[in-house]
Parts: sequence; C-alpha cells; structure tokens
Amino acid sequence: MSAGGFKAKHLAIVGLGLMGGSMALALRPYVDTITAVELDPGARDFALANKLVDCATDDLKAGVSDADVVILAAPVRAIISMIRNRIGAYLRSNTLLIDIGSTKEDIIDAMGVLPIGIQAIGGHPMTGKEQSGIEASDATLYRGRPFVLVATRRTTPATRLRALALVEALGAVPIEMDAHRHDRVVAAISHLPYLLSAALVATVAQEGDADDAVWKLAAGGFRDTSRLAAQDVQMMGDILSTNTQAVATLLAYFRMQLAILEAMLISRDEQKLAERLTPIREARLGWQQRQENNPK
Amino acid sequence: MSAGGFKAKHLAIVGLGLMGGSMALALRPYVDTITAVELDPGARDFALANKLVDCATDDLKAGVSDADVVILAAPVRAIISMIRNRIGAYLRSNTLLIDIGSTKEDIIDAMGVLPIGIQAIGGHPMTGKEQSGIEASDATLYRGRPFVLVATRRTTPATRLRALALVEALGAVPIEMDAHRHDRVVAAISHLPYLLSAALVATVAQEGDADDAVWKLAAGGFRDTSRLAAQDVQMMGDILSTNTQAVATLLAYFRMQLAILEAMLISRDEQKLAERLTPIREARLGWQQRQENNPK
Repeated sequence: MSAGGFKAKHLAIVGLGLMGGSMALALRPYVDTITAVELDPGARDFALANKLVDCATDDLKAGVSDADVVILAAPVRAIISMIRNRIGAYLRSNTLLIDIGSTKEDIIDAMGVLPIGIQAIGGHPMTGKEQSGIEASDATLYRGRPFVLVATRRTTPATRLRALALVEALGAVPIEMDAHRHDRVVAAISHLPYLLSAALVATVAQEGDADDAVWKLAAGGFRDTSRLAAQDVQMMGDILSTNTQAVATLLAYFRMQLAILEAMLISRDEQKLAERLTPIREARLGWQQRQENNPK
Repeated sequence: MSAGGFKAKHLAIVGLGLMGGSMALALRPYVDTITAVELDPGARDFALANKLVDCATDDLKAGVSDADVVILAAPVRAIISMIRNRIGAYLRSNTLLIDIGSTKEDIIDAMGVLPIGIQAIGGHPMTGKEQSGIEASDATLYRGRPFVLVATRRTTPATRLRALALVEALGAVPIEMDAHRHDRVVAAISHLPYLLSAALVATVAQEGDADDAVWKLAAGGFRDTSRLAAQDVQMMGDILSTNTQAVATLLAYFRMQLAILEAMLISRDEQKLAERLTPIREARLGWQQRQENNPK
C-alpha cells in the first residue's frame, strides 16, 4: 500500500529549533504556505528573513487554526502541555497533528483524548546534529534516517497514510511501533548512554581536580565515551523526566552487567572475563558492520 | 637542561605491532642499525621487506645482546615476564631499556631489580589508531602526543636524559610521573571508560536480542559511547589485570556518581538533577576547549 504523495495547503510548525527549521526546509516543495509558531522573536525573524516560513507568530491559536497539517517540534513537556491545554480546540477537523518529541508514552496518552476528528499521530525522527538552533537548519537532516511513528487513539488508517507520506517527503525511513516499546528502545540506546557519559565525566572531573594530569592525558577513548555529557541539560532533563521508568529499568540491567565484569576483574578470573568480553566485542562489531551495509 | 640529540648505534625493538613498527619508522634517522625481536614470522618478514628494521629474530638474547638501546613494545605481562626471567642477563652495561606498556606499577617494580648498570625507565606513549598490527605502522604516530616517563630504581640522571632525548626524537611530549599516579590516571580516562562501554553494549545487546528495533535505531550517541567495547579483548584483559586496584577504585567512585544521578531522576527532583548535570557538562566542554587550544 503506497502512502501517496505528501501535500498540504497550510503547514504549521510549532517550535523553530533545528528540528522545526529543518522540517520547514525539507517540506517546502510540498506545501503552499508554512506558518511558524514560536515564542522567541529572534528565531521568528531568522525564519522569515531566510524564507524558511511564510508567516510567524507567537500565538498558538492564530498559527494553527487554518492549518491542515500541524507539526509540534517542541520539548516533550511543552508538547504535552499544548495538547492538554489548548490545541484541540483550535484545530479544524481532519487536521493531521504530528509531534516529534523524543519520548512518546506521555505524548501518545495526551493525544488520545483530543477531540474526535483530529488526526493525531506521534513521531520521533532519529536524527540530530552537534549544533542546535534554527541557524543550523538543514533540508537533508531527516534523509535516510529512521522516523518512528506511533499510533494514538486518534490515528485512523487515513492518518497513518498521511503521516507515512510526510515521512517519505522528508526522505526518512518510517518505523512503526507502540509508545512503550519506543521509550524502552531509546532508553537503551540514548538515555542510558547519556547518564553513563555524565557519571563518567563526574568521576573523571573528581580525579582531575586532584591531579591535572588526568585532563592532560585524556584522549580519544575519553572523548568518545564522554561526548554525550555535553548535551543540553534542560533538553536531557525534559527527556529523562518523561521516561523515568524505562531509564531506571535499563540502569538496573546495566549495573548487573557492570557488576559481573567487575567481579571477574577483581577475582582475577581472566579466562571468564575474556569469555564474557568476546561476545560483547562481537555484538558491537556486528552492529557496526550492519550500519556500514546500510549507509544513510 | 636540554635532553640533547638522541642517537643509538644499535636499537633493538622487542615486539613488532603498531607501536613497535611505528617506533622503528620514527627512530630510523637517529640509529645505525635496528634489530627486531618478534615471534611471529609474518611480522618479521613484513618488517624486513619494508625496511622497517635491518635484522629480525625470534631469539631475545641474540636480538638484544649487542644493543645500546632496547625498547620493549609488547603486552604488559610479556614485558614483565621478559624483565623477570631473562633480559637483564643478556644486556650490556649502560644499555637504555625502556618499555611502552599501558600500565606501569608492575613493570616498574620488575625493572627495579634488574642488574645495576642497566639504565631502565618506564614509558607509556598515549597514542593509538583504529587499526593494529605492524602493517598500520606510522612514523608520525607519536608526534605531538603525551609520552609518560616513569623512573625506576635503575633510572640514573643519565638514563632520564637519554629517555627524554628518545621522546623528543619521536616528536612526543614527555610527562614525568610515578607509576602509581600513572596507573590511577589511565584507570580514570581509559580503563573505566572501556568497562562502561562493554557493560553498555552487554545491556543494549540484551535488549536487542528481545527487540531488533534496538539495533535498527541505535545511532551516533550509542556509536561513540560503545566504541571502546570493540577493542581487542586479550589486550584489554592484559591491561585490566595489571591495574585491578585502581580500576576497582574508580568503579566504586563511578557507581556513586551514577547512583546520585539515578536518585534525582527517580525522585523526579529535576531542579537538583539540572544543578548536578550543569557542572558536568561544563567540565566536558572545558576539557574540549583545552584540547582545541592545544592541537596535536
């Protein structure tokens, strides 16, 4: 079943950061008018001056009431708050409402009680950049990247097809799953790595305070393992606080895995340690191989 | 005090991997003859065919007995075993003996009981490459990189100056410290990150066995955090088993740091979590800044 070509008369994008700005650039060929809703006047001015969007407002109601497609490109709890407090009443019937928040369960729950007739679906494009902000917008940001779609109680077969067409227009690869599964997956591959990275930097910083040679000698291994600790604290706080259960579950499993390695190390059971580390190494190399066979 | 120019009549390199082969290439302009001691005939043939060395043998005694400088470029426990079992008796008086093992305390202890007259000093060049093996040898591998020097009971002032000259000839940056401090530093910046990376991959692999979407959606954050888990298992086993105490200490501190973040997360104390993550982020960014101001 083909998703068909994506088209919109009036696309509203709520939130003009890297993700929202890149959506505007990527979807421009498929829509007549793009309106942005954004509180920051600097981001609005940038988007207008660079013709990313046709109109920009700080008024949610004014921005979305004429739209036939609305993309919520804001932090997770801002998305939830818009859904719970106002947006359903502002939208026309049959409007496609999609969000791109990094966790899905709370958002999907909130979408489930929107007025009937709103075509609501959750989304999570698995992409990003070192830089953030609308200035870093890039029409190719979504190309070849996985784009998770999560059905809500307001997702009709037509909603799903429109969302698939939107993902296709972005050049992204749609992957459909439920919200619980999504949140567990991203806890493993993204939120757990962030917390480990932060706790590593805290440990190394404590050593570095006592001995500057720590910072002097730190090199590539530390650089890679600690990179995620430089992520935006507010953004990560928003994401972690909406995925606490899955993250805590993964942390418990991680501690178990680390404890097994530590026990083998301390007991100097080197044969067992090697037997345990070998399939771990193979799993990492296997994933890398798979990535290389499916270049983005 | 200048270290003076490095010169050797007869340099012996024990171990022809990436590190040993790169030593041969980098030191070639400063020595008359290079002999390699290596058990693997393939590595010996490669080194001779590509003129990295002038002679190659599998006999330690024959390889080192005429040398005035000997570099031990083997795994840590192979280095210790050579020092304990044979090499002192094979060496001429005043030979400079330096190793490049990744942990230092056990090696320095062993060097301390070499025959008086052997100019023994420990070394650890902080460099590497994705590829390993002599085929990846690179004359610039050590250039601009820190090279830790660790004094032994057999390190005279003359030993130290010869070692500094050798480091300078490699284009590396000498950093002198004692073995205990070195091992603690590398536990923090290298061995702890490796174990975290391995335990992360074990955790993610367990999730991935249950749900293939884990592998499908894993991207840049997982890639960087897990990269060290692909390191050679035998090499890491050798390193970890000779640095157990420092690694176990750092693991205990790490668990504490992780537990604090987890408690704040689970109790949903987001303000405190942000206050804790902010200086962590700044420490990481500060280190990065420092690295960029001191390009290699």
